[in-house]
Amino acid sequence: MLKFQSQPQSPHTPRSTKTSIMIIGGAEDKIHGREILQTFFKRSGGKEAKLGIIPSASREPLLVGDRYRTIFTDMGAKDIMVFDIRDRESASASQWQTFLEECTGVFMTGGDQLRLCGLLADTPVMETVRKKAQAGQITLAGTSAGAAVMGEYMIAGGGSGESPNRSLVDVTTGLAIVPELLVDQHFHNRNRMARLISAISAYSDRIGIGIDEDTCAIVEGDGLLSVIGKGTVTIVDPGNLLFNNEHIVGATDPLSICNLKVHILCHGGHYNMHSREIIIDPGQTGN
Amino acid sequence: MLKFQSQPQSPHTPRSTKTSIMIIGGAEDKIHGREILQTFFKRSGGKEAKLGIIPSASREPLLVGDRYRTIFTDMGAKDIMVFDIRDRESASASQWQTFLEECTGVFMTGGDQLRLCGLLADTPVMETVRKKAQAGQITLAGTSAGAAVMGEYMIAGGGSGESPNRSLVDVTTGLAIVPELLVDQHFHNRNRMARLISAISAYSDRIGIGIDEDTCAIVEGDGLLSVIGKGTVTIVDPGNLLFNNEHIVGATDPLSICNLKVHILCHGGHYNMHSREIIIDPGQTGN
Repeated sequence: MLKFQSQPQSPHTPRSTKTSIMIIGGAEDKIHGREILQTFFKRSGGKEAKLGIIPSASREPLLVGDRYRTIFTDMGAKDIMVFDIRDRESASASQWQTFLEECTGVFMTGGDQLRLCGLLADTPVMETVRKKAQAGQITLAGTSAGAAVMGEYMIAGGGSGESPNRSLVDVTTGLAIVPELLVDQHFHNRNRMARLISAISAYSDRIGIGIDEDTCAIVEGDGLLSVIGKGTVTIVDPGNLLFNNEHIVGATDPLSICNLKVHILCHGGHYNMHSREIIIDPGQTGN
Repeated sequence: MLKFQSQPQSPHTPRSTKTSIMIIGGAEDKIHGREILQTFFKRSGGKEAKLGIIPSASREPLLVGDRYRTIFTDMGAKDIMVFDIRDRESASASQWQTFLEECTGVFMTGGDQLRLCGLLADTPVMETVRKKAQAGQITLAGTSAGAAVMGEYMIAGGGSGESPNRSLVDVTTGLAIVPELLVDQHFHNRNRMARLISAISAYSDRIGIGIDEDTCAIVEGDGLLSVIGKGTVTIVDPGNLLFNNEHIVGATDPLSICNLKVHILCHGGHYNMHSREIIIDPGQTGN
């Protein structure tokens, strides 16, 4: 068994000049070290950053948008626009597209993921954001509800305190920015393991990731997922699923789901989403 | 991927005449079908059962002991003794040993597992119970606190709502009845996945099992673990652990622990503790 002996210093260590998709578990530090928000700022170009903030998940988009505007202004961003989109019609406005042409980073705030998808799924502005993020032309970050929407399928809500069962989680369609992931957030903080397992039993061709608060999974174009922040990223890989009674039991019956591979990664941990393997840095020694 | 198509009807289906160790996740049905308590009663010999009830985990041992006495009397047990042991000295009394000579089943109630171990660990009465259970001479059941004590190591307490970390769980010495298991109970009901994972990261030569309320893991002498009841038994197998930072981080730092194998089994599921494999019944078909 190998054990971490040091913080990894490998070619995979997040680099400030690389664009990426940042999936944040909510409640990221906004006051002290601001590690995750600083990383977003740096990856978006630092002082040269031209940032779009999408607060549409929130029912108080101006308030939430301004909070992030202030933070990134303090960091020194060159230009910031809050995309205050409150209905689907406004999502077609040309001003967003014009701004996105030169934009280097987009940040989606928390709120309600159903609201965010309802307002923005399949709109011109979100299509441009998705394509640019997937092409590595911008850094795209989402926190809480903004993280939930990253997969093709999205956990819209659910419960805890029960055995995994189908009624414990509501899964709907997300924004398909990183289609292969099924994301949950505020993860261990809100005891969401059973609901993520319930979801993955129905979508066993996906990878479940549960992201804790003030923690971020950084996804890069080559399928590398890296962890930064205070908590952990839990990866639930059903790739070797042995059996699963998901299709035959009633909605509230407990699920059987066997041979899940589970990894819990803290700051500095790396995972290859393509090979579905943990990456162990050469600097780490075993015992 | 194989899926359950029917309730398994295999040679491994629990048989009423076989002694076994029954690890119950607490809050077992005491009023309606009483499936788990009926199974204990039947495996202890049914109408021929001579049962010992150990209520020492509870601060109200007479009350708790009498409740189970009434239940098993109603079922028709031949003879029942409540082992009302409230200090270590009483644990040496000859009356318990005399009763145990002809005893066919012992039931350990809920309460506080530290209290149960404090009163009974390494006492003559518990040594006799342990040896008889391991030799298959009695059926031994424990619920809640009575389940927690089954391993050589025991989860004495802990928290939830946090990333797995060392301070999330207190592990101490159990009664070593099934030494290879590290048991947690009220499992999904009280969101205890993170604490079981925290515990198993420090005792990675054990198998973690989390048992839901009104659910029972039945362990037989050949290493077969079978599930009955309403919820699930979650098996956390660290046998292929890839790396683990447990020994180098601070008590409240998040743990990295990779390559856990996790199985969630509901009623009718079987697991071989020796080969660490799920047993798929021939009657089940795949797709």
